[in-house]
Amino acid sequence: MSKYQFKKNHLLGIENLDPEDIDLILETAESFVEVSTRNIKKVPALKGKTVVNLFFENSTRTRSSFEIAAKRLSADLINFNSSVSSLKKGESLKDTVLTLEAMNPNIIVIRHSASGSPYYLTTFAKSSIVNAGDGFHEHPTQALLDALTIKQVFGTIRGLKITIVGDILHSRVARSNIFLHKKMGNDVSVVGPPSLVPEEFEKMGAKVHYNLKNGIKNSDIIMMLRVQGERGAGRYFPSVREYRNYFAITKELASYAKKSFILMHPGPINRDVEIDTSLADSDKSVILQQVTNGIAVRMAVLFLLKGAMNESVDQKRPGN
Amino acid sequence: MSKYQFKKNHLLGIENLDPEDIDLILETAESFVEVSTRNIKKVPALKGKTVVNLFFENSTRTRSSFEIAAKRLSADLINFNSSVSSLKKGESLKDTVLTLEAMNPNIIVIRHSASGSPYYLTTFAKSSIVNAGDGFHEHPTQALLDALTIKQVFGTIRGLKITIVGDILHSRVARSNIFLHKKMGNDVSVVGPPSLVPEEFEKMGAKVHYNLKNGIKNSDIIMMLRVQGERGAGRYFPSVREYRNYFAITKELASYAKKSFILMHPGPINRDVEIDTSLADSDKSVILQQVTNGIAVRMAVLFLLKGAMNESVDQKRPGN
Amino acid sequence: MSKYQFKKNHLLGIENLDPEDIDLILETAESFVEVSTRNIKKVPALKGKTVVNLFFENSTRTRSSFEIAAKRLSADLINFNSSVSSLKKGESLKDTVLTLEAMNPNIIVIRHSASGSPYYLTTFAKSSIVNAGDGFHEHPTQALLDALTIKQVFGTIRGLKITIVGDILHSRVARSNIFLHKKMGNDVSVVGPPSLVPEEFEKMGAKVHYNLKNGIKNSDIIMMLRVQGERGAGRYFPSVREYRNYFAITKELASYAKKSFILMHPGPINRDVEIDTSLADSDKSVILQQVTNGIAVRMAVLFLLKGAMNESVDQKRPGN
Repeated sequence: MSKYQFKKNHLLGIENLDPEDIDLILETAESFVEVSTRNIKKVPALKGKTVVNLFFENSTRTRSSFEIAAKRLSADLINFNSSVSSLKKGESLKDTVLTLEAMNPNIIVIRHSASGSPYYLTTFAKSSIVNAGDGFHEHPTQALLDALTIKQVFGTIRGLKITIVGDILHSRVARSNIFLHKKMGNDVSVVGPPSLVPEEFEKMGAKVHYNLKNGIKNSDIIMMLRVQGERGAGRYFPSVREYRNYFAITKELASYAKKSFILMHPGPINRDVEIDTSLADSDKSVILQQVTNGIAVRMAVLFLLKGAMNESVDQKRPGN
Repeated sequence: MSKYQFKKNHLLGIENLDPEDIDLILETAESFVEVSTRNIKKVPALKGKTVVNLFFENSTRTRSSFEIAAKRLSADLINFNSSVSSLKKGESLKDTVLTLEAMNPNIIVIRHSASGSPYYLTTFAKSSIVNAGDGFHEHPTQALLDALTIKQVFGTIRGLKITIVGDILHSRVARSNIFLHKKMGNDVSVVGPPSLVPEEFEKMGAKVHYNLKNGIKNSDIIMMLRVQGERGAGRYFPSVREYRNYFAITKELASYAKKSFILMHPGPINRDVEIDTSLADSDKSVILQQVTNGIAVRMAVLFLLKGAMNESVDQKRPGN
Repeated sequence: MSKYQFKKNHLLGIENLDPEDIDLILETAESFVEVSTRNIKKVPALKGKTVVNLFFENSTRTRSSFEIAAKRLSADLINFNSSVSSLKKGESLKDTVLTLEAMNPNIIVIRHSASGSPYYLTTFAKSSIVNAGDGFHEHPTQALLDALTIKQVFGTIRGLKITIVGDILHSRVARSNIFLHKKMGNDVSVVGPPSLVPEEFEKMGAKVHYNLKNGIKNSDIIMMLRVQGERGAGRYFPSVREYRNYFAITKELASYAKKSFILMHPGPINRDVEIDTSLADSDKSVILQQVTNGIAVRMAVLFLLKGAMNESVDQKRPGN
């Protein structure tokens, strides 16, 4: 493993990571991939540490993935479910987190609808904060597990072309992936209807396309985003049916990508909406491999932050 | 313990077990009964294994029983609660389970309202599947814990007469028990109103009665089923009151059974509906012993399937 | 640690504890305070024991505090959430608890809206029962964690003046604290509007005040209770605004207390309702220290009751 040391106390987003941080997280994750295939899927690395899942949005997959990751590291995992929490009684986010912190957890994993809330926590909390999705802002462990999957397939996460398709505007997955792949020097394209792909994404270094065929030309990686039928349709595009006609990925369209292309999706997929079911189940799809890598990447993040936790509080306070 | 080896990779129902499988599960459970009475109620048998409780119907008792069983075997237990799950977002059962499986669990315990859904999982999943109740079909661990209780009382689970009373038609508990006791060569009777006890149960080898007194005559075991007041009344019988007049068990009626009879119920009981409260609290009732045995039987099932999990995936794929 | 042995099998309330019991719990808790600041926050004291959180009222903080305490003692913790429990199916509390007990837990932590329900459980249950709040009656671990905080600040829990402010009538926290401080020989005052501070509290040994300034004069400890805006306003006082004018604690009012006074609150606080936000965040406030001590006190209680559990059942049955 690299001699580079992880110097962050928190994982708030990809934006403030150095390429060396990303490499280190992926190398650490690679060493954890094997743990989950062992007969005894457990290492003692975080024994006696307390990890709290503080989820203010429902998410069985991401929450369970962090829970399994924490338990395979032998940590104690507490699910602090907001729907029954004191927030209902009008307590502020800050008071909720300060109360939680008074119980001496080591790491707080937070999902919240407000962009920037994980960063806000670091301004007063002494635990390590992990962003598990904040509003439309970032979802860093998703981009990292995507990167690990890409590295497993192509042997590298550099020198590639990635095309992200769908509702880029409202996608924290897209933002975290754009940050990551620009840092790695990759060629990044985003595709979708103009209402969902504003030109400002060019400022992030992405090429903006409104035509799927053009967008995926010569891509190594096609990353489809979930159509939030319940949210978008009618506001940002006329109908799910029309959206599908223009932006669903099919085998025929995929032929414009490189021959060795892979198909990614953060899940859960809408079969035959944004993704043709035959393609979703083909050997081009690495969707389940992404889920598997979610465990290893989250183990790596919890493990590396655990290192930071051993520093003195004063050194930590300045934050991420 | 018997030298017979458990060859199943899944526990889908009693119907596809051999009598030797049932004997082996009960013998294994007997060795686990003692663990729960120890000062340290824990053995390391499943350390580092991941067991998932995937419940699509509410059930605190059965879910908690599997959770305690898994933890006493030192497994990591993840509750994957459907009410907050991605199924709400329109994901199919298959995609939900494939996603879950990508996290490398060893055993998935499923409760689902669709009969046959645990079997369906085995057609694509590589984990061991345990049926914790599927629609009106089977509830195998319930029949096994009932059988363990019977064996503790009578010293055997063969050569007995068992009478099952109530809503046989909609009862997975009744079906699993009929399968089990016919395999063991026992005399099985079912009793209830004609609307709830169709004659087709005779094809399963059970004697059908519509009169409680006749049904329990000379029985060793009276197994009362729960009256689903909220479901049945008005559709399958005129009123709970009328049902009780004909099919509730009382001390007087119980005198028609053998002197050494025992009274069973899968719980939760409706006092003074299907069961006289004085009888429920008498020494004839083994209802709480059934609950206690639930832990040991589920420990045995998880333990024995853990054995299967060590085989190669190819050998496993052909399924149960 | 004291040579006095803990002789109770249950923790039902402060009322039936001897001063020596309280001293022993606090001394034991002091030894556990350090565990939560260790690199490995875990001791094997309750390995292989099963602790059940049986909560019939929502409470993320108290529930999580017991969960963390149990896990730091290496116990298996099962959350038995009533909102999905069989109680919905009409099962009685007694049958629910008997069923739970049949799974051989060691300790049941219960929160229930009915005063006296934890005591009721001891009349038939063989586990150790811990009251985590019963109606308007008692909340003993809250009073104990308050006492630990007081001891840490003043070096003693004797010879002090404590003033409790707010809705005394409906507060189990107030009742448990009054019992505790009267046992310790402290001077106890209660303050609030007459509708919420009936004179009968004088029978418990507390001085009753309706004027905040008079009530807190020369106090060492000011304990503010939460205003249940959703419950009280309009029934017991005209409006939250008017309540605040008379009974909120401000820096100016606090100057009537002793110079070395501390400010306590069971949380969650209503900033600028019962407590001035600048005071809540000042160094006079020990509110977060109370939360921290909650873990240590609950570890102590679970640990000491675990001792009782090793006695024979017959010796235990006579109860608390």
